[in-house]
Amino acid sequence: MKSYRRELTFNLPARRGFVNITPQVKAALKESGIQEGLLLCNAMHITASVFINDDEGGLHQDFERWLEKLAPEKPYSAYAHNGYEDNGDAHLKRTVMGREVVVAVSGGRLDFGPWEQIFYGEFDGKRSKRVLVKIIGE
Amino acid sequence: MKSYRRELTFNLPARRGFVNITPQVKAALKESGIQEGLLLCNAMHITASVFINDDEGGLHQDFERWLEKLAPEKPYSAYAHNGYEDNGDAHLKRTVMGREVVVAVSGGRLDFGPWEQIFYGEFDGKRSKRVLVKIIGE
Amino acid sequence: MKSYRRELTFNLPARRGFVNITPQVKAALKESGIQEGLLLCNAMHITASVFINDDEGGLHQDFERWLEKLAPEKPYSAYAHNGYEDNGDAHLKRTVMGREVVVAVSGGRLDFGPWEQIFYGEFDGKRSKRVLVKIIGE
Repeated sequence: MKSYRRELTFNLPARRGFVNITPQVKAALKESGIQEGLLLCNAMHITASVFINDDEGGLHQDFERWLEKLAPEKPYSAYAHNGYEDNGDAHLKRTVMGREVVVAVSGGRLDFGPWEQIFYGEFDGKRSKRVLVKIIGE
Repeated sequence: MKSYRRELTFNLPARRGFVNITPQVKAALKESGIQEGLLLCNAMHITASVFINDDEGGLHQDFERWLEKLAPEKPYSAYAHNGYEDNGDAHLKRTVMGREVVVAVSGGRLDFGPWEQIFYGEFDGKRSKRVLVKIIGE
Repeated sequence: MKSYRRELTFNLPARRGFVNITPQVKAALKESGIQEGLLLCNAMHITASVFINDDEGGLHQDFERWLEKLAPEKPYSAYAHNGYEDNGDAHLKRTVMGREVVVAVSGGRLDFGPWEQIFYGEFDGKRSKRVLVKIIGE
């Protein structure tokens, strides 16, 4: 069994945003040399998300609007978590979008359907945050 | 280490529906011959879901009603994604229900609690869509 | 390849609650002797959750309030599932919070960011329920 580990770092200029990280994950898989296995990709921070969906700008606007409806950023005082912080909403938004994805590796490639792309979802940005890629297999 | 891959195909007659796919996943596991490992089962499409819950018809009605409340299908114009499509809601519903499950394989079986069953959740049906089963182990 | 399996049991005195289970999961990992691999931790019951977030009491209050807003416990008659049961809401709450987490194992440790902790989320308690830890690797 082989295993491989790599960290990706992101620093988004806004509080919230989505980044297509499929190219970086593919590069990590290639570097690993693993042909058959499982790939885990997860946010290492609890106010960020890694998820799989469509790379379509309208959809990302819909996600932003929808998450703000489900767990609004303001008023900050609505969250018991916001004693010394203001990111209570970000913990809830990340919960909806998910912490991690697990992707099959087949024939040395991400074993994806036609539109699957991996995204980093930031809900409390303007600082450096990390994503972990871990691959095991052969 | 052994690895195994299989695609399952579904074509639901309605826009939305849930299918218990546990028998097909068990058959794939048996065919793999793997005794100890991890099994990934994921939707290959971004408007569908694979999730684990109870095989109880009332609950599935509750899921349908609840998802329509959280992310209504109509009006289609409510979604920026719906320029050329009408499935903006399906992307959000699938996000709530999840893309994938990872299941332990122990003694050649799905290592499940008493009521756990695997479902395919369709949110934009009336066409052929795929689910991936990938198993690694020994 | 090595594999390891362990069940953890919880019996919460209230209908709902969150328990930090990171120490038990770390102990399982240590016992497994696995240095590099993947660890799956999942609720074996469909009205409970395993998730990763911050160990902060205010946040847990926010989760409780938010989940009650998204899927209220009462009136019980609001759920088609509640013919012979009263836990329809618990199935939906667990869906939001997720069934499982997959964690990278690197150098014999849970490969976590600075604030990541694993929680058991109970939504229909007052009885004994199980969590599965399955680890594969080397």
